[in-house]
Amino acid sequence: MNATAKPADESAAGKAATDAWLDEIAWDERGLVPAIAQEAFTNRVLMVAWMNREALRETVTTGQAVYWSRSRKRLWRKGEESGHQQRLREVRVDCDADVVLLKVDQVGGIACHTGRHNCFFRRLEDGRWVEIDPVLKSASEIYGK
Amino acid sequence: MNATAKPADESAAGKAATDAWLDEIAWDERGLVPAIAQEAFTNRVLMVAWMNREALRETVTTGQAVYWSRSRKRLWRKGEESGHQQRLREVRVDCDADVVLLKVDQVGGIACHTGRHNCFFRRLEDGRWVEIDPVLKSASEIYGK
Repeated sequence: MNATAKPADESAAGKAATDAWLDEIAWDERGLVPAIAQEAFTNRVLMVAWMNREALRETVTTGQAVYWSRSRKRLWRKGEESGHQQRLREVRVDCDADVVLLKVDQVGGIACHTGRHNCFFRRLEDGRWVEIDPVLKSASEIYGK
Repeated sequence: MNATAKPADESAAGKAATDAWLDEIAWDERGLVPAIAQEAFTNRVLMVAWMNREALRETVTTGQAVYWSRSRKRLWRKGEESGHQQRLREVRVDCDADVVLLKVDQVGGIACHTGRHNCFFRRLEDGRWVEIDPVLKSASEIYGK
């Protein structure tokens, strides 16, 4: 086997030692699972994003939430632009092993790119989606553009 | 137009009157979105399932959670066999409109088909998934088989 054919962390020995828990995840046909980020101290649901194997491994290794951006087709280290990282407290998986739940501390108290505490700021009221949670920080303040 | 070509609830007039909020959902290529069920009074995440348009409409109309079973390819009225219905308190949608969050009261205090309070009963501990939440009722008690 040509050792240069794979990145170091995918070597057979490394995989055997560390990745059994990743093999138990029921990755979908794209190699992804949905991941829910839940605020550890309030239990509020912050957001849902997608993870591939690398994202989940790096999340656990570094203790900071890392997702897979489907639009940008690359790892998305949450907070890399906004500073709004998510510090990992706990990782859970559901009965079918096809959804991951992260309990996190949300840096800055803002998880949504719209500057709100979380992404679920619209509630259905009389057949209409109504914005009920405030913008805490404008996009220009967060992203400086 | 042949009136028999579509089910009654998809008629143009009915759609215009009632379904604008459903059109705002970013259904995936299969016509589905993930739906998180969260226990209203504890904020604990109970489960994640999938919804199509009919499931979400019926959930809102009846006030009981209805999902789309991908394995059985039919509507799954949560609790239809177990009795563990989910009574709807609130529906939210996220910033991209591609995830739905239901706040519910969980009948029987059991959401998972394994007889546990919720489906996220395994936590990652030292590289292993460990079952940390108890079975409250056996499958034979729930399903009578």
